[in-house]
Amino acid sequence: MSGTSEDASRTRTFTWDDPRALAEAARGLSGIEFLRKVASGELPRPPISALMNFGLAELAEGRAVFTVEPAEYHYNPIGVVHGGLAATLLDSAMGCAVHSTLPAGAGYTTLEVKVNFVRPLTAETGVVRCEAEVIHVGGRTATAEGKVLDAAGKLYAHATTTCIIFRTERG
Amino acid sequence: MSGTSEDASRTRTFTWDDPRALAEAARGLSGIEFLRKVASGELPRPPISALMNFGLAELAEGRAVFTVEPAEYHYNPIGVVHGGLAATLLDSAMGCAVHSTLPAGAGYTTLEVKVNFVRPLTAETGVVRCEAEVIHVGGRTATAEGKVLDAAGKLYAHATTTCIIFRTERG
Amino acid sequence: MSGTSEDASRTRTFTWDDPRALAEAARGLSGIEFLRKVASGELPRPPISALMNFGLAELAEGRAVFTVEPAEYHYNPIGVVHGGLAATLLDSAMGCAVHSTLPAGAGYTTLEVKVNFVRPLTAETGVVRCEAEVIHVGGRTATAEGKVLDAAGKLYAHATTTCIIFRTERG
Amino acid sequence: MSGTSEDASRTRTFTWDDPRALAEAARGLSGIEFLRKVASGELPRPPISALMNFGLAELAEGRAVFTVEPAEYHYNPIGVVHGGLAATLLDSAMGCAVHSTLPAGAGYTTLEVKVNFVRPLTAETGVVRCEAEVIHVGGRTATAEGKVLDAAGKLYAHATTTCIIFRTERG
Repeated sequence: MSGTSEDASRTRTFTWDDPRALAEAARGLSGIEFLRKVASGELPRPPISALMNFGLAELAEGRAVFTVEPAEYHYNPIGVVHGGLAATLLDSAMGCAVHSTLPAGAGYTTLEVKVNFVRPLTAETGVVRCEAEVIHVGGRTATAEGKVLDAAGKLYAHATTTCIIFRTERG
Repeated sequence: MSGTSEDASRTRTFTWDDPRALAEAARGLSGIEFLRKVASGELPRPPISALMNFGLAELAEGRAVFTVEPAEYHYNPIGVVHGGLAATLLDSAMGCAVHSTLPAGAGYTTLEVKVNFVRPLTAETGVVRCEAEVIHVGGRTATAEGKVLDAAGKLYAHATTTCIIFRTERG
Repeated sequence: MSGTSEDASRTRTFTWDDPRALAEAARGLSGIEFLRKVASGELPRPPISALMNFGLAELAEGRAVFTVEPAEYHYNPIGVVHGGLAATLLDSAMGCAVHSTLPAGAGYTTLEVKVNFVRPLTAETGVVRCEAEVIHVGGRTATAEGKVLDAAGKLYAHATTTCIIFRTERG
Repeated sequence: MSGTSEDASRTRTFTWDDPRALAEAARGLSGIEFLRKVASGELPRPPISALMNFGLAELAEGRAVFTVEPAEYHYNPIGVVHGGLAATLLDSAMGCAVHSTLPAGAGYTTLEVKVNFVRPLTAETGVVRCEAEVIHVGGRTATAEGKVLDAAGKLYAHATTTCIIFRTERG
């Protein structure tokens, strides 16, 4: 199982699981079945989640919510959390929102993501939610949008994405 | 000093430095002076670089190059490196390309970043370079573009960004 | 007054008004006062509206709706309406949504717009609405989003934008 | 044949050709063969080109250049040329750059376009060139970039796009 520890000396240790097992599980399940097993812990969280310390908190067809607590180890050189944290969270949440609509045997790849940064995250912001929903799901492409919000509902970043969908004959 | 270690048991430990010292150093220097001290190791690398294990490799006015070796701990749930690695690298390199053009006393914030993913990074890709250059630097805004390339010059992702610039009377 | 005529021989004639008078009127009014005079016809519609034959249909603080009937003269070389029509509409509606929040003496410029095309518009689509709303309005920047929808609510395109705001001491 | 006339009374008349004939011609030719016939005038220019008064000036495999002279009838309500002109030009040029790489029987659709506006176009800018080149052309998707420049090489806008490609068995 993946885990994490950190201390006052600015050292953090984390562990992760073999991602190939996870990718193989994905192939036999519908998107929402697969993601529910990740959210519940029945399947291990992916390495990127262990690395950046975020998790899949809520899931419905066409919708996914991730949470993270911004920390000092997410900081950029100019004194606030690096935009890459919000970008990674938004890419994850929007991708999962699309994935949650796909039947077993279908897959997707993110073609592009566009992120607007509205205000900076800091180690004092507290836990933030990244909420994403599909806008359009067609036969060959899908689009989705997402927002990063704090506990009071204040907006930090928002994004849209374009995905390509691979459907099999049955998918 | 920041450092990192990992082993066959899928455990990684990294350390980082207080980012406030870095942000304070940034305020007294021109962008290129500040970034040269980060690249040379005279100033500590920012926490996000320690977290994701990438570094600033080359720097010139209006241009920055980062390098990273994609690893298993960067993976997403579908069996390849998460798009967040390229997005974070590109955001870093494009932001530094803009920052490198600013005089002491001026600052910037990234308003938006748009990333296209052309092919997936994996743990077999080897070290990749993220090269960014400014497109336009004006009084109040700047734009830049970046690419992620492997050792053979193959393209993995490309991006553009919009930044707002804060200039003081002298900046 | 601006006007338009077209006929079966694929000829269209349109007229427009001096845009400088319009731009001068904009300077003395709050955004919403100015745009209400354009919507009501008290001020002339801008040349681009005469050219592309679209109009401002609804307005509220932070929200604007334009309508257009896609026609053969909007077509691209591959047999459907050119994406430029949706892009121009979305840019207009999102810009007006931002403008509608600004006091007299403040101004804005669009820094970037990103448009997703979900399905093609044709001359058979009928009148479409382009609905835009602000997402974030801060001191120096604003973001907004917009959608192009037909009479049945079917989605054709969606977009986001980033604007820079110029405020005077009183603005 | 398409044509245009305008006069000091702010009236413009333009004509266009049936776009279905053009779209049918596209289906039997490779992208570059088709576009060369449009550039040479052997095939009529598409209606959008007649409407906005721009034209395809240069063409090579993976590259397209359009030109336009910004005019008063392209103006927005705030006293400069509407961003929709640059957006439409850039969408055209980037789409043609992608199209020029496709064999007969293959087609494409633009999924998204992202445009940065660097400085405003006016009726005094003179003729501008919109130069676009492909960045990546793969089996199922392509990306391209474009710039709008005046006669002195000054930059007004730049953009990127993502296209989906439809290939037949032989394409």
